[in-house]
Amino acid sequence: MFESAELGHRVDKATFAAETPKLRELLLNAQFELAQARRFPVVLLISGVDGAGKSETANLLTSWMDSRFIQTHGLEKPTDEARAMPHMWRWWRQLPPKGRIGIFNGSWYSRPILQRVHRETKEAQLDQSLGRIGRFERMLLDEGALLIKFWMHLSKDAQKKRLKNLEADPLTRWRVTDKDWDHFEMYDRFRKICERSIQATSSADAPWTIVEASDFRYQALTVANHLNDALRRRLDGLGNPPLILAPPLPPRLDAMNVFQKLDLSQRIEKPDYEMELERLQGRLNLLTRSKAFKQRSVVLAFEGSDAAGKGGAIRRVTGAMDARIYRVISVAAPTDEEKAQPYLWRFWRHLPGTGRFTIFDRTWYGRVLVERVEKFCAEADWMRAYGEINDFEEQLHRNGTLLCKFWLAISPEEQLRRFEARRDTAYKRFKITDEDWRNRDKWDAYQQAVYDMLDRTSPSHAPWTLVESEDKNFARIKVLKTLVERIETEL
Amino acid sequence: MFESAELGHRVDKATFAAETPKLRELLLNAQFELAQARRFPVVLLISGVDGAGKSETANLLTSWMDSRFIQTHGLEKPTDEARAMPHMWRWWRQLPPKGRIGIFNGSWYSRPILQRVHRETKEAQLDQSLGRIGRFERMLLDEGALLIKFWMHLSKDAQKKRLKNLEADPLTRWRVTDKDWDHFEMYDRFRKICERSIQATSSADAPWTIVEASDFRYQALTVANHLNDALRRRLDGLGNPPLILAPPLPPRLDAMNVFQKLDLSQRIEKPDYEMELERLQGRLNLLTRSKAFKQRSVVLAFEGSDAAGKGGAIRRVTGAMDARIYRVISVAAPTDEEKAQPYLWRFWRHLPGTGRFTIFDRTWYGRVLVERVEKFCAEADWMRAYGEINDFEEQLHRNGTLLCKFWLAISPEEQLRRFEARRDTAYKRFKITDEDWRNRDKWDAYQQAVYDMLDRTSPSHAPWTLVESEDKNFARIKVLKTLVERIETEL
Repeated sequence: MFESAELGHRVDKATFAAETPKLRELLLNAQFELAQARRFPVVLLISGVDGAGKSETANLLTSWMDSRFIQTHGLEKPTDEARAMPHMWRWWRQLPPKGRIGIFNGSWYSRPILQRVHRETKEAQLDQSLGRIGRFERMLLDEGALLIKFWMHLSKDAQKKRLKNLEADPLTRWRVTDKDWDHFEMYDRFRKICERSIQATSSADAPWTIVEASDFRYQALTVANHLNDALRRRLDGLGNPPLILAPPLPPRLDAMNVFQKLDLSQRIEKPDYEMELERLQGRLNLLTRSKAFKQRSVVLAFEGSDAAGKGGAIRRVTGAMDARIYRVISVAAPTDEEKAQPYLWRFWRHLPGTGRFTIFDRTWYGRVLVERVEKFCAEADWMRAYGEINDFEEQLHRNGTLLCKFWLAISPEEQLRRFEARRDTAYKRFKITDEDWRNRDKWDAYQQAVYDMLDRTSPSHAPWTLVESEDKNFARIKVLKTLVERIETEL
Repeated sequence: MFESAELGHRVDKATFAAETPKLRELLLNAQFELAQARRFPVVLLISGVDGAGKSETANLLTSWMDSRFIQTHGLEKPTDEARAMPHMWRWWRQLPPKGRIGIFNGSWYSRPILQRVHRETKEAQLDQSLGRIGRFERMLLDEGALLIKFWMHLSKDAQKKRLKNLEADPLTRWRVTDKDWDHFEMYDRFRKICERSIQATSSADAPWTIVEASDFRYQALTVANHLNDALRRRLDGLGNPPLILAPPLPPRLDAMNVFQKLDLSQRIEKPDYEMELERLQGRLNLLTRSKAFKQRSVVLAFEGSDAAGKGGAIRRVTGAMDARIYRVISVAAPTDEEKAQPYLWRFWRHLPGTGRFTIFDRTWYGRVLVERVEKFCAEADWMRAYGEINDFEEQLHRNGTLLCKFWLAISPEEQLRRFEARRDTAYKRFKITDEDWRNRDKWDAYQQAVYDMLDRTSPSHAPWTLVESEDKNFARIKVLKTLVERIETEL
């Protein structure tokens, strides 16, 4: 597959000089339109072999375009903050917002490919990583990103020549390291693994473009032209991702559902509750102070009908902890910075560091609950969200982050009682809005969305805990108990 | 000054039980109003001696209020990212946005006080730090923050007793460390230094409140009541900071100004320009690759009239560098997250780490230029901005960040020529807007603002470089030369 990038493509000086002014103008215009419209972000990957002019290409593009709206990222040593987070966090943080271009000189491909080249992983693990990358890119594309992937290629001979030339020039000698020569020794192996990676991750809307890198003018013009074409197409409204036409979710043939197995009549009376609460809070407090915990992090996800008691349950959890180690995130309307990013970005940014809790009062599941029912997003968007959410939670799991998801279940009758009580209690009045009453009318549609969610997002490493919440005491104890036992098992 | 906090204040159990439900309701209501209105942030400092119940107080407040709108911060080991930044950066990052409460358990006071207690600094240095803190808090207050400062006090005997009690209980023993006893040994010294610090930093609108900490119920009620009163007052529109009635800036008695000394006729012809450009870019490139540079960071601030050539000058600087080490920030309308923070916050967040450049295309000086002339902010706001900006730049300086500020000067005639050229060149047309034409009509008002700015913000560690920009070549070379020479001197 690299053959057509080993033919010795060249662009002569005169052609280059004639082409560039026009191309720069086109690129600048496209970039400006992009920045004005803020409809989508552009993610541009520049990968390839050592010495294949990756930085030079990034530098040239940046110098041609308006540097205020373009940002190049390199592969850097992760900070201590990044080391505490899922592997993809460093990329999540660097994604360009809508209207901007992010160039990734080295990307999420670098680690899996190099690990395999150095035989730190088996082929199956490489494929597993590539699968994850494919799903991540799918998500970016579905969220509207324009994803352009360039692979800079040099034949073995050309690479050798390039490295030698760089070494010979005192001005560029610093750029050739022993690591580069080590990599060169493994050229054939590297090539095979890259080939596999490129094939596995080329899709219709984000194919790899392999660019011969033996002549910089050819390489630069190829990249710039392609970038311009791709930008133009999207700006002109062509090449938008096709609408996913998903089959409808299968209708439920009977009225059976997981909630029916719940015994909502379970209660805990006050004296027992208070004793149990103190005991569990004590255990939780000790756990959060343990040495083992300092290396872990915890994400708690609270969902449930309005007035199911999420806030009260959260307060019983936080009541056991030092206020410095947790953060409660209440999901509100996204800020404009959040709106310029993929849906999950507003949750990524609040992930806990080691020794810390983040507690989400409503979560990323809003996508398949309220956004589905209220039609805030298209069917295709919430349909794909199940998979995106599972991928996200798997990354937390692989990072050693403990994730507990609670669904607080109450009956519609109990909800009504609580709504009325809220309406009539002075300091609780702010907790009830017209919207809550409106949502109540859609109880069945919401339940349907909940069933689908539970069916589709309960892997064994991130199961939902259904919490019978008709009795607040019972619910709070069950939440605390589940949490304490999960942490004890994990540590 | 601690005497009235050594009287043995107590609140009995019954009073406490009777007071708390009402107080919690008031606090919750106030907190909700605060969150809805998003008019101001609340910064609550809890400082004081070891063992004086600082975390307990923070935990209690958090448990009483809605934890979604309140966040407690502790004194933590700075991350490696924070270590590369000015000392205050970690606090800048943690400031609550408008509508939220941030509790600081340990704050910007901790380091200067402890350094002085351990004799790492002299009294003058303590006072210098306190002076800086005072100016930082002044800025927060002027930006509208409600700043509440509690000092938790224990007499020497009471502290000894407290530490002994904590040690005696197996459940709390972990909380008493050798460091606590070391601190206790220095109680008298600590007390004197704290007294000095408290006195130096109590102002009319952010006084310290000293709270006796020997009885937790007394302490908790005092803090909660005071917080409620302070919130109530601000929410009800009382206690807003008084408008500063500054004397007007002195009128200029003659038409002399610093720009008249500039020789705008200076030119560099193309062949010289190209040779010089290449030479300077080469030097800059080598400098950014040097070992010494990897420990430093650079901030470039570009200001100037519209069409003075900022973008072109910036491109000649970035053209010399690898795209991965710099970031160009173009100052646009603030995002809603930025609007919820002090004015300088949107610049703080883009400061460079070590080995990196941040290049601002227009800067924090917008406050005293466009915001002043267009009356986007009150006179008191831009008048205080000179001092705030000087403080900010001094912090960069103290952190070892190299700051270069360029004012690109052109004549009104040259501006007109460039405007017309932009209007008539296809790919430059997006660079000129109706606003640019309107601003041109206010040339004199802008010049006045520039003179005042230059007069007030040119300390020797962060001088302005006036760049004669009538000839673009000359301007670009002067910018590069100044930058290269500054870096060479610094390294």
